[in-house]
Amino acid sequence: MKRLCVLLAVLALGLTATAAQAASDKAPLSEATQSCLECHVEATPGIVDDWKRGRMSRTSVAQALKKEALKRRVSAKEVPAEMLNVAVGCAECHTTNPKTHQDTFEHGDAQVHTVVTPQDCAVCHPEEANQYKGNLMSHAWGNLVKNPVYMNLVEQINGVQEVIDGAKITVQKPGPLTNAESCLYCHGTEVKVIGMKTREVGDYGEMSFPQLSGWPNHGVGRINPDGSKGSCTPCHSRHQFSIAMARSPQTCSECHKGPDVPAYKVYQVSKHGNIYAALNQTWNMEAVPWKLGQDFNAPTCATCHVSLLTDSQGNVIAKRTHEMADRIWWRLIGLIYSHPHPISPDTSIIKNADGLPLATTFDGKPASKYLIGPKEQKARQKRMAKVCLGCHSTQWVTGQMARFKNSNQTADAMVLAATKLMQQIWAKGWAKGLAQGASPFDEYIERIWVDQWLLQANATRMATAMMGVDMGVFDQGRWYTSKNVRRMHDWIKRQEGKK
Amino acid sequence: MKRLCVLLAVLALGLTATAAQAASDKAPLSEATQSCLECHVEATPGIVDDWKRGRMSRTSVAQALKKEALKRRVSAKEVPAEMLNVAVGCAECHTTNPKTHQDTFEHGDAQVHTVVTPQDCAVCHPEEANQYKGNLMSHAWGNLVKNPVYMNLVEQINGVQEVIDGAKITVQKPGPLTNAESCLYCHGTEVKVIGMKTREVGDYGEMSFPQLSGWPNHGVGRINPDGSKGSCTPCHSRHQFSIAMARSPQTCSECHKGPDVPAYKVYQVSKHGNIYAALNQTWNMEAVPWKLGQDFNAPTCATCHVSLLTDSQGNVIAKRTHEMADRIWWRLIGLIYSHPHPISPDTSIIKNADGLPLATTFDGKPASKYLIGPKEQKARQKRMAKVCLGCHSTQWVTGQMARFKNSNQTADAMVLAATKLMQQIWAKGWAKGLAQGASPFDEYIERIWVDQWLLQANATRMATAMMGVDMGVFDQGRWYTSKNVRRMHDWIKRQEGKK
Amino acid sequence: MKRLCVLLAVLALGLTATAAQAASDKAPLSEATQSCLECHVEATPGIVDDWKRGRMSRTSVAQALKKEALKRRVSAKEVPAEMLNVAVGCAECHTTNPKTHQDTFEHGDAQVHTVVTPQDCAVCHPEEANQYKGNLMSHAWGNLVKNPVYMNLVEQINGVQEVIDGAKITVQKPGPLTNAESCLYCHGTEVKVIGMKTREVGDYGEMSFPQLSGWPNHGVGRINPDGSKGSCTPCHSRHQFSIAMARSPQTCSECHKGPDVPAYKVYQVSKHGNIYAALNQTWNMEAVPWKLGQDFNAPTCATCHVSLLTDSQGNVIAKRTHEMADRIWWRLIGLIYSHPHPISPDTSIIKNADGLPLATTFDGKPASKYLIGPKEQKARQKRMAKVCLGCHSTQWVTGQMARFKNSNQTADAMVLAATKLMQQIWAKGWAKGLAQGASPFDEYIERIWVDQWLLQANATRMATAMMGVDMGVFDQGRWYTSKNVRRMHDWIKRQEGKK
Repeated sequence: MKRLCVLLAVLALGLTATAAQAASDKAPLSEATQSCLECHVEATPGIVDDWKRGRMSRTSVAQALKKEALKRRVSAKEVPAEMLNVAVGCAECHTTNPKTHQDTFEHGDAQVHTVVTPQDCAVCHPEEANQYKGNLMSHAWGNLVKNPVYMNLVEQINGVQEVIDGAKITVQKPGPLTNAESCLYCHGTEVKVIGMKTREVGDYGEMSFPQLSGWPNHGVGRINPDGSKGSCTPCHSRHQFSIAMARSPQTCSECHKGPDVPAYKVYQVSKHGNIYAALNQTWNMEAVPWKLGQDFNAPTCATCHVSLLTDSQGNVIAKRTHEMADRIWWRLIGLIYSHPHPISPDTSIIKNADGLPLATTFDGKPASKYLIGPKEQKARQKRMAKVCLGCHSTQWVTGQMARFKNSNQTADAMVLAATKLMQQIWAKGWAKGLAQGASPFDEYIERIWVDQWLLQANATRMATAMMGVDMGVFDQGRWYTSKNVRRMHDWIKRQEGKK
Repeated sequence: MKRLCVLLAVLALGLTATAAQAASDKAPLSEATQSCLECHVEATPGIVDDWKRGRMSRTSVAQALKKEALKRRVSAKEVPAEMLNVAVGCAECHTTNPKTHQDTFEHGDAQVHTVVTPQDCAVCHPEEANQYKGNLMSHAWGNLVKNPVYMNLVEQINGVQEVIDGAKITVQKPGPLTNAESCLYCHGTEVKVIGMKTREVGDYGEMSFPQLSGWPNHGVGRINPDGSKGSCTPCHSRHQFSIAMARSPQTCSECHKGPDVPAYKVYQVSKHGNIYAALNQTWNMEAVPWKLGQDFNAPTCATCHVSLLTDSQGNVIAKRTHEMADRIWWRLIGLIYSHPHPISPDTSIIKNADGLPLATTFDGKPASKYLIGPKEQKARQKRMAKVCLGCHSTQWVTGQMARFKNSNQTADAMVLAATKLMQQIWAKGWAKGLAQGASPFDEYIERIWVDQWLLQANATRMATAMMGVDMGVFDQGRWYTSKNVRRMHDWIKRQEGKK
Repeated sequence: MKRLCVLLAVLALGLTATAAQAASDKAPLSEATQSCLECHVEATPGIVDDWKRGRMSRTSVAQALKKEALKRRVSAKEVPAEMLNVAVGCAECHTTNPKTHQDTFEHGDAQVHTVVTPQDCAVCHPEEANQYKGNLMSHAWGNLVKNPVYMNLVEQINGVQEVIDGAKITVQKPGPLTNAESCLYCHGTEVKVIGMKTREVGDYGEMSFPQLSGWPNHGVGRINPDGSKGSCTPCHSRHQFSIAMARSPQTCSECHKGPDVPAYKVYQVSKHGNIYAALNQTWNMEAVPWKLGQDFNAPTCATCHVSLLTDSQGNVIAKRTHEMADRIWWRLIGLIYSHPHPISPDTSIIKNADGLPLATTFDGKPASKYLIGPKEQKARQKRMAKVCLGCHSTQWVTGQMARFKNSNQTADAMVLAATKLMQQIWAKGWAKGLAQGASPFDEYIERIWVDQWLLQANATRMATAMMGVDMGVFDQGRWYTSKNVRRMHDWIKRQEGKK
């Protein structure tokens, strides 16, 4: 549509000379990429045509570097000479850094690797890749897999249960296929070369390919065959790499929908999300920098958490960051209680007062040594507030932030109420928890307790954080946290009645 | 996008003269507004640029009044002279009616108020503001806050629970921050000036601002500092005030998503919602009047409940109304049973046969004195049917209306079944309800009963009302109402077994 | 929007001659259709203007037949002479096949029928209509209504429950209005003429119309008054019949949202769905054939299951089919366990080893005689894989298919665990099932068991099938299947404690 209109504009103005000029501005393809395309236009036509729709297929790094600072989409100061004056095609990404890639293999005349990693993208986008290293997401694999408490939860959720003699239930350890298709889909798998496989490829004859473990995967914390962590493609989807895609809220919904991470569901019913839904057809989702009010009139996820923002005069409101917690001072989800953001993106190093690798104890005491302090919290809050203040008054923002704090506190208090009942149940021996050397996640009443924090208190907090209020009451929040405590209490009364 | 194309059309036709004319048609800004913009283009750039995208920033009331009746977007016969020939900018809204506004304060050279109210909008849109006064929504604050039964429910949902000695649960009264971020977000807060606050404002030096209670808020029943009720901005979002926004179904989803008010969820899976989702890019969401079949080919919420509709010949199918119940003859949600719509928008005056401020008794007996009678029901149903008949045959509409009646009756019968079990539980003393001087909403089994009507029977009814059928079966309706009765029965059997 | 731009293109290029030519290409209306329009432009203006937006209102069959094979939208070799050179208007569909239609009636000068059926559409689209006959969907009415096990489930869900003496619950058989507004809305009703009714029609005087049972309805397995099965309009919505509509994922959501058939919910959070949401404004949703990568860069439901696909060179990737299982080799939903697809679209003929009309026994044993074998499964899987391979590597596809198989197996194992507990409960007499001559769906604990397969294991399977992973864990899948088994176990322990 957009392109059609651009074409029309060109025609309408009768600027045929300019049009010819524009066509000649299209960067040439490298010989290596042309060679890839010769077969792949047939072998994987969808990839090729998708790539053709994108900016990289027609722009050279040299052209990209010519833009003035705020409009620039690449952060490299210089790139290898052979990449400078060609469009960014197959070869530019899939043959870069061949030596660091365990998955490099001989393919046609080239040393190709299947898995393009943040380290590959860093050739042109080093700042973004570097920021991403500080992002909690880049450690999402280890933060789950190296945490025995979480892994016990994974096992209880994903493991196949067998009923023995109608009375006993055993849980099989979930296999890699199951984990790859559940938790690790977003957290990332460990992608390693586990052998080579030769097969007949249509008219091309026999070819050998490295066999990859944990493939396919584009999780944010993927362990790559070049040793790097993460993936750029969950947000910058292959092979068009549209910035509009990365800025669209639906993109984030792949992993952040809910009910465990209900960000997108909250956004959808927020006023911000309503405006996006109703009016985004009139927005410019591709402009760099992204001009508040002019290019768009309500934030998407990227606006608040990632994008370089200016006003229509070019004054910078927020710098681009790929360290998502840069404007986040409080962590709301994935844990029993809300708490200040962890200092290190590697959360597997955390130990709380009970010796568990969790940011708070079951009673809510934070493992403060591993968490950012009030000063850093304030700095991050200020950065976020500056985005809010682009469209809202100081009093508006202050008022909303006070409610945010209050929702965190009250949601945490509701988790504490449920936890106290759970601790009583464990103490009485009605269920077996950690103290009894058992999983705290395997019995029915324990699951009700987990619902309280993993799926419901988190919604209460996030609903206020992003102003999608019904998610904090009837869709997922307070209605359920208040009912859960009563349900646990009802269970206890029955248990007492049994004696 | 649209504007680009309009621009292209102008260019394409080479009508430079017309283009110049169009530019000169842009209404001038008042001096007062220019003065606001001088600072606010920097202070709140997002607001300014958002406003610039809207029609009000370039159209004077005089221009708006020149349109023929059906195309007119203002209902005033005349407006104050100083407003007539300027665009509607900052000053036109934020300095109007300065004396009635408790929140008026000295700001720059002007008497400014923060909160723009329906009474302010009424300067140009008096008919709409007046209709809105008869709208249940305008009383949403009092209808909740002045109803002790509902407020007990609010307390049980929102109040922080504390577990005392592992056995007893106490509930703290929820604070204003919690209520503002849950029920009152949509129902509206009471916005009053509670003091003045002076602070340093960047380069501008010290400034004083009125401090507002319950701020921010844009709830439909907000109590405003000028004594008026409600807010236009939940639907006509600041500061673009796009009519496309008000007509978009997502706009209504902010408060009407679910599961308590599942209108939007039903719409989404209805054929109407499917067509909107697939084809709305080809619709004209801004045309006034809105021409059925020509401007759009499936209704949004606004089509059936609010908008002025004509056919493509200009014959009026439905008049514009901001009294949402104008085409609604039956009330489906928010209460235990469906019932005829209340006569007065103030429902806190209702008293049922049991002396409670509810439109029906727990047994389903309507408080008929406060509800519209069969004649008025018929008139409203006829107005709605006329909209349906624009695209559907008489037999189609009659058939659907019969199903609507049937779904209300059967859903109500399922509520009655659950209520009978609940009454038995109260009678046996297994839980304490109103008769025992206790909350009917605080125990687990009572919550199951509330689920039945507040979250599930309502979905059954609304699914038929708007033809999004799975919402009435597996997503939220009959699967759950039928299971709930069994669950309550199972609970009773256990309770009997304990004895 | 699209049309505006096309108009602009024409203007921009100054091709007035071509424009005039284009206008003259508009096919004339038949006299019969003109006669319909004379009144209906007033009687049902929305239908008329909706139809005007569509291709059929301006294209004759003769024009459609002139297109080269891959671009052709009609599959007839020839059509009745009187239809050949006119646009496809009211009369062309509503008066065709008058003798086979029980609902044909005298209306104006014409023999009109209300219900347009696949047999009517087959005049121009015989291949599609024929394929649809082999589609499970076309038998959706009988597959439900003629299956006593399913009908018992329907009765338990839809029947109004009455509480007798506070202790006993009776279930009323659900009436036709309830079933039409729930299960049969999608499965289809039986539409028969049950009489004639005469009424005053505005200025036109008295008119008689056939009265239809089960009306309105556009279910996929509707029994039509001409004896044919199904309806084309659930996907090809009246009266614009936009192919973009049929290809939009939201269209499928009307019946396939969830939680019972969670296809659309899975799609929404899948990467495919994310890309659709973010970028579909730039797609060509109307091109025939639909060119992978060029016209769109992520699949919708139709891409994988229905559409004729080519690459941008015109090489066919998949043939058009309206037999939806053509690329489906495994059935995931609607039954207790996953199983190979049924051979016949009429599933009411199936008998499992226990003599029940279900594709597996309660223990999971497939009724293999009625299900496709490994060879046919492989052929269908290959057809689907070819679509995947348009954009993904062989290893990617193989890896995903292995996970699909694994998810089916593990989800089925979790159903088996719940079923074993249920069978124990039946054996002990704690609930009454089929063996005790009772409904297996009427008691609370039985409903928990049904949740396991009908609403939750299905989500686990479908989440992998379409890569919307959270739907298979916290939104609807493994979190719930693992909790359900524990809940049933908890219930059993309580039951044992009672003794």
